[in-house]
Amino acid sequence: MKLYSYWRSSCSWRVRIALNLKGLSYSYEAVHLVKDGGQQNSDAYRALNPMRTVPTLELEEGGQVRRLSQSVAILEYLEERYPTPALLPADPLLRARIRMLAEMVNSGIQPLQNLSVLQFVKGELQRDDKAFAAHWNVRGLTALEAAVKETAGTYCLGETVSLADIFLVPQLYGARRFAVDLSPYPTLTRIEAACEKLPAFQAAHPDRQPDAAPA
Amino acid sequence: MKLYSYWRSSCSWRVRIALNLKGLSYSYEAVHLVKDGGQQNSDAYRALNPMRTVPTLELEEGGQVRRLSQSVAILEYLEERYPTPALLPADPLLRARIRMLAEMVNSGIQPLQNLSVLQFVKGELQRDDKAFAAHWNVRGLTALEAAVKETAGTYCLGETVSLADIFLVPQLYGARRFAVDLSPYPTLTRIEAACEKLPAFQAAHPDRQPDAAPA
Repeated sequence: MKLYSYWRSSCSWRVRIALNLKGLSYSYEAVHLVKDGGQQNSDAYRALNPMRTVPTLELEEGGQVRRLSQSVAILEYLEERYPTPALLPADPLLRARIRMLAEMVNSGIQPLQNLSVLQFVKGELQRDDKAFAAHWNVRGLTALEAAVKETAGTYCLGETVSLADIFLVPQLYGARRFAVDLSPYPTLTRIEAACEKLPAFQAAHPDRQPDAAPA
Repeated sequence: MKLYSYWRSSCSWRVRIALNLKGLSYSYEAVHLVKDGGQQNSDAYRALNPMRTVPTLELEEGGQVRRLSQSVAILEYLEERYPTPALLPADPLLRARIRMLAEMVNSGIQPLQNLSVLQFVKGELQRDDKAFAAHWNVRGLTALEAAVKETAGTYCLGETVSLADIFLVPQLYGARRFAVDLSPYPTLTRIEAACEKLPAFQAAHPDRQPDAAPA
């Protein structure tokens, strides 16, 4: 498998964690979201992924090259195709609970602070992009803290790592980039610290990627 | 089952379509997103759903009342619990494809034009909320048209209604509200017309809900 990824893209990061947790090896293809006006906007990448987003997962099945995009679709595919270790519990109501927590990040926070939106807020609207990003992080994390508290153990749901943790960790990193005060979210930061002890999460961290350019 | 819904909420609409397609009956509990400063912001509703979003699906299982929120989590739950008729195909790669199309709406368009975001753009940023919404609709629908074309038959994937169609139809209604020209998306509007012939889609339309207030 080949993963088209950007080191600091939270959606790429989610997939890296899942691939690592499931013990799947992959090659890393960097797509720089800022350089050259954004390599995701090139004709070559657009042909792979018309939404011009990372990640894209390339794989071979039945002798054919297939490409999957959208992190939720990729994660659900990995879960169905490589069920062990499971990232969703067996019980349908608990699965719904985990997906709800994941969605609070996936559709509730991340889309409002991704690069193209912030570029638009700053460039077209001439408004403070970091304040915009921080606003939606605070709103979403407040709700997420309340929801996670109900089921949290070491991780978002008891003692087992799940999709919810995979969405949480990259989002908290994003929140810090926008100078969000995380002290009102003690459950979330405690879970983050527990995840960061796991090798699968460590290896997926932006700073450990081949295209990392830490300040 | 009881569905907390708002007639014009595209996320509520998605769940109404799925409930109808699966032949599941439910009672309708209106949550007015604008009246009284937004009934979703009331303490009572916040206790049901800390994210203050619609829909919320309330159901009884094992003698207990359970509440699910986030349309993606609810839809996946309904698909697992009531698998017939299927809204996802059996093949893992096709399932990923359908979820990718759904995500292009779910995380790619809808979050950028929901009510709370537009209120913020207009009220806090003092910018044109409708132009903001239209921009992200155009960007997302352009990508979606390109992606859907590859697999479309009568519906987004061949001849069977799927989750992708459930996300598409409410989004096109939203795009029209923001005066987006839909002529560049002939595949999407053709599929929409096919869906609108189905009783499950007809009964889920905003104008047919108890809290509808068409202009």
